[in-house]
Amino acid sequence: MAALSSTHCRSYSPLQSSSFGPSSSSSSSSSSSNLGHFQRVSVSSVPKRFLAAKVYSLQSQTKSVARMQDGAVASTITPIENETPFKKLKDGLLSVPSPDECKDAVGFGINENDSTVSITVVGASGDLAKKKIFPALFALYYEDCLPKHFTVCGYARSKMTDAELRNMVSKTLTCRIDKRENCSEKMEQFLRRCFYHSGQYDSQENFAELDKKLKEHEGGRVSNRLFYLSIPPNIFIDAVRCASSSASSGNGWTRVIVEKPFGRDSESSAALTKGLKQYLKEDQIFRIDHYLGKELVENLSVLRFSNLIFEPLWSRQYIRNVQLIFSEDFGTEGRGGYFDNYGIIRDIMQNHLLQILALFAMETPVSLDAEDIRNEKVKVLRSMRPLQLENVVTGQYKSHTKGGVTYPAYTDDKTVPKDSLTPTFAAAALFIDNARWDGVPFLMKAGKALHTKRAEIRVQFRHVPGNLYNRNFGTDLDRATNELVIRVQPDEAIYLKINNKVPGLGMRLDRSNLNLHYAARYSKEIPDAYERLLLDAVEGERRLFIRSDELDAAWSLFTPLLKELEEKKIIPEYYPHGSRGPVGAHYLAARYKVRWGDVGVDQ
Amino acid sequence: MAALSSTHCRSYSPLQSSSFGPSSSSSSSSSSSNLGHFQRVSVSSVPKRFLAAKVYSLQSQTKSVARMQDGAVASTITPIENETPFKKLKDGLLSVPSPDECKDAVGFGINENDSTVSITVVGASGDLAKKKIFPALFALYYEDCLPKHFTVCGYARSKMTDAELRNMVSKTLTCRIDKRENCSEKMEQFLRRCFYHSGQYDSQENFAELDKKLKEHEGGRVSNRLFYLSIPPNIFIDAVRCASSSASSGNGWTRVIVEKPFGRDSESSAALTKGLKQYLKEDQIFRIDHYLGKELVENLSVLRFSNLIFEPLWSRQYIRNVQLIFSEDFGTEGRGGYFDNYGIIRDIMQNHLLQILALFAMETPVSLDAEDIRNEKVKVLRSMRPLQLENVVTGQYKSHTKGGVTYPAYTDDKTVPKDSLTPTFAAAALFIDNARWDGVPFLMKAGKALHTKRAEIRVQFRHVPGNLYNRNFGTDLDRATNELVIRVQPDEAIYLKINNKVPGLGMRLDRSNLNLHYAARYSKEIPDAYERLLLDAVEGERRLFIRSDELDAAWSLFTPLLKELEEKKIIPEYYPHGSRGPVGAHYLAARYKVRWGDVGVDQ
Repeated sequence: MAALSSTHCRSYSPLQSSSFGPSSSSSSSSSSSNLGHFQRVSVSSVPKRFLAAKVYSLQSQTKSVARMQDGAVASTITPIENETPFKKLKDGLLSVPSPDECKDAVGFGINENDSTVSITVVGASGDLAKKKIFPALFALYYEDCLPKHFTVCGYARSKMTDAELRNMVSKTLTCRIDKRENCSEKMEQFLRRCFYHSGQYDSQENFAELDKKLKEHEGGRVSNRLFYLSIPPNIFIDAVRCASSSASSGNGWTRVIVEKPFGRDSESSAALTKGLKQYLKEDQIFRIDHYLGKELVENLSVLRFSNLIFEPLWSRQYIRNVQLIFSEDFGTEGRGGYFDNYGIIRDIMQNHLLQILALFAMETPVSLDAEDIRNEKVKVLRSMRPLQLENVVTGQYKSHTKGGVTYPAYTDDKTVPKDSLTPTFAAAALFIDNARWDGVPFLMKAGKALHTKRAEIRVQFRHVPGNLYNRNFGTDLDRATNELVIRVQPDEAIYLKINNKVPGLGMRLDRSNLNLHYAARYSKEIPDAYERLLLDAVEGERRLFIRSDELDAAWSLFTPLLKELEEKKIIPEYYPHGSRGPVGAHYLAARYKVRWGDVGVDQ
Repeated sequence: MAALSSTHCRSYSPLQSSSFGPSSSSSSSSSSSNLGHFQRVSVSSVPKRFLAAKVYSLQSQTKSVARMQDGAVASTITPIENETPFKKLKDGLLSVPSPDECKDAVGFGINENDSTVSITVVGASGDLAKKKIFPALFALYYEDCLPKHFTVCGYARSKMTDAELRNMVSKTLTCRIDKRENCSEKMEQFLRRCFYHSGQYDSQENFAELDKKLKEHEGGRVSNRLFYLSIPPNIFIDAVRCASSSASSGNGWTRVIVEKPFGRDSESSAALTKGLKQYLKEDQIFRIDHYLGKELVENLSVLRFSNLIFEPLWSRQYIRNVQLIFSEDFGTEGRGGYFDNYGIIRDIMQNHLLQILALFAMETPVSLDAEDIRNEKVKVLRSMRPLQLENVVTGQYKSHTKGGVTYPAYTDDKTVPKDSLTPTFAAAALFIDNARWDGVPFLMKAGKALHTKRAEIRVQFRHVPGNLYNRNFGTDLDRATNELVIRVQPDEAIYLKINNKVPGLGMRLDRSNLNLHYAARYSKEIPDAYERLLLDAVEGERRLFIRSDELDAAWSLFTPLLKELEEKKIIPEYYPHGSRGPVGAHYLAARYKVRWGDVGVDQ
């Protein structure tokens, strides 16, 4: 497989997409310029060539480019005229002019007829493909985010006709809540672009057949190919080898998306990376962590870096602790086979929560470019102490009967060994030994079969020094802590707990929330993380994907702990299915003078 | 009149009234202790004697005390058990346990049978008395905030029987929206405590008759007397002289509440103060500025001093400008006679807005004691530059026809001279030349007959230095300013404008509000400013009243400007009745690189 870094254009320019343009006209693409409705804004820095070049550069797309990021040019820039988030929306719903959000966003504008993207979902009959990948691709299509010429190809071992694939896919497609217009028509159109090819994951011959089929659909255009490996990790390398040798693009780019698990410790992860790199260059590998595609995780950097009320407070001087909390309200439910080999620490903490932590804690990057951000994330990870056993609490859910219903224990799952010690819950205290965060505990908590389903980031600020109102808070100053909560899911929200005077003649204080509830503010449905990530992969935007050195650093932090847990056969603390998890998590928090913010009546 | 500083007890102790007590039981006075339901919390510092003394000190109440603040002792303190603002109120309404909010608050607890308070409303037939003072007294009575024994006496020149006064008063009494129970019964009980005495304001004889009548109602108890002078300022001194010589308390305290205008410049104000001080000590004079009694003005210090997310930001380093905005949506409407002699600058700016500014900008006081706070306020006022003519814009509303209706000009008011130059609108830039605020413009704007009715404080923060997202804001960084808005009236709210990512696949930013809307958060009706202030006066809490030196300092800032405006006969900029005021206000703001926050679609 030729390592072709694409020079595929990013057509959206931040300058075009300012939310604060002078115009007060309303939404929709009334711009006369072909570029006027390029709504999607890249957070990549905008090189000066963005402003100079007059045409897209697809002419040069077969040239191999060694830079990590895509080359990118665009036409002359005019201030956008069709954006007005400030129109009479004080407390009302913000109707986002989404139909144009990423029209032409993939940058095939001028030369769109000359190129195409083929997206091959390897493992097309799997759950992830059905539930997430195909629906996300359809949503992108529905929103005009995919290029004019594209093909979606399902690849798997089972025999299936194109019609059968389409039938299977159609069952999981949904139209966005906020615009059901023409949905079935759009769905038809989308399905006509979907094909199926049956083959083994390790057969060069089968991939060569796929290549032939893709070529037919590409019809002589510049071919760009994206492979989504939705298959078990033990066959990653085989599939990549075959795709690379027999089905990579001859004149465009070839990219491969891989999903976790990326190994189960430093060694196996390094082996996987080494295997992939036999056939792919670093910039062709898109390691997905779908948490990084979540709206409020994307917003984390915006909140922090674009608000003066937060930016100066973002350090040990003002922040007392940070909490990263993930909980699911269901267990493994008969699918514990995979999970049992990994456990909650590998499944959630080492990737999702650690990635959020790194984004939260990183130093200000030079720019919003993928490499600048990933450089800072690596620095945070490398400043961290590897986890110590005494800073970790593990748990496993046991059976619990409530209201006549018995909820099973983890080990009741038939796919799980009866004597499994795999943690389904873990809490950990992590520390970043740098100037900004020295001594600030970062607490993580993740678990299955808990009382609620939630993912959130909680920032607890320090007490006010010399607080005049200390008396009014009673003995428990923790109850008066300012707290910033970023609720990633469900029901996205940001709220800031402040101390406020209770109205009335007295001087009683309470803690009230300054609220931003997304459902109340924004009428638009929030896109699924996979949509964002798939679009980024198509566009070559790597910001939200994990680089090899990040992955190495992440594993370095967790591998010693994971080995120790397994070698010492540490017995998890059992907690009832549907409870708040083992109480050990509180003692761990208390050791670092932290109180979990998600426990209590005023969360 | 004997200058009797009272040693009247403050019965509420902050330690008792913590909102963050350990108990999670619910509201209402279930405490077994007689002190357990003392809900009203003084923000006065709590001297150690509060914790030591076992009984109230009314025994010593006739002793003359020279200190500016009341002596105060209280019984032993136990943590309050009937307070739980944290009960399941995440986003819901906070039901404040108000019935007990100030029960016994006036501190007559143990010796309540031995003492009484007589509240004489001098000028009882006036508008203020009818609309504000009697209703506020009734509200305090309704909420059990007045002592067991009290008498309300109306005093005015017109002849009226007790029944006639009661009839007049009853027409303006309303019951709190949130508890209409027993309202008519309570109203009856209150009216039975109301009496009327007819007399001249300068007649010692008539005041002696009043004294006799009050004595009858006091029934031999320790007599405390509060006079509310709701009369024109030219008869203040006469009334005070008569009340002092003929109707002051013999064995309790005597206090006098006066309302603005406190003169119309430094000289007349000083003369008034001198006149009052012939008969009263400083600590007997309660100069009311009812804006200081407003809930959100009270909350200003709480927000600032008890929240780490605000406290470090409260300086020139982070705050770009502060705006104090007052607008009324009606003109003088036939009552311009008084106003024309004063104008909007004296009527609103020199007192209400300047008081808020001082509270906003003061250094951290040593404690929340009245004298500590007032000391800091005076320091701010004394650090300010007197207003310069070039930093002031004045306006006067002119007639305007809209939808077939013609709204009158200020000079159409029959009580206003046709050639009046009195400003009905003013905008001003003020500066505090101290280390904290050097160079930060404090902009004030006040006007009548504008398009809206509003009072608010707006704090605009600086831009984020080196903002990574600058490109996303387009050319107008002002649109990306973080802003804290404290809406004093109507519809009380606090909101913080933050820059946020608009949900969706792109990277567009908007400015969204983190909201605390009082009506949505607190079920209790917010008490009228007069209730708070009357209760404070009964209790001898001077925090919200203006001390003579504050008043002097305030006049020093405005007197030169006011004289210059009048001497030079500066012509105001005319603006249409019902408009947003003269555009000159924008040019004034622009000179200091400020943009008024209340103008625009996303206020």
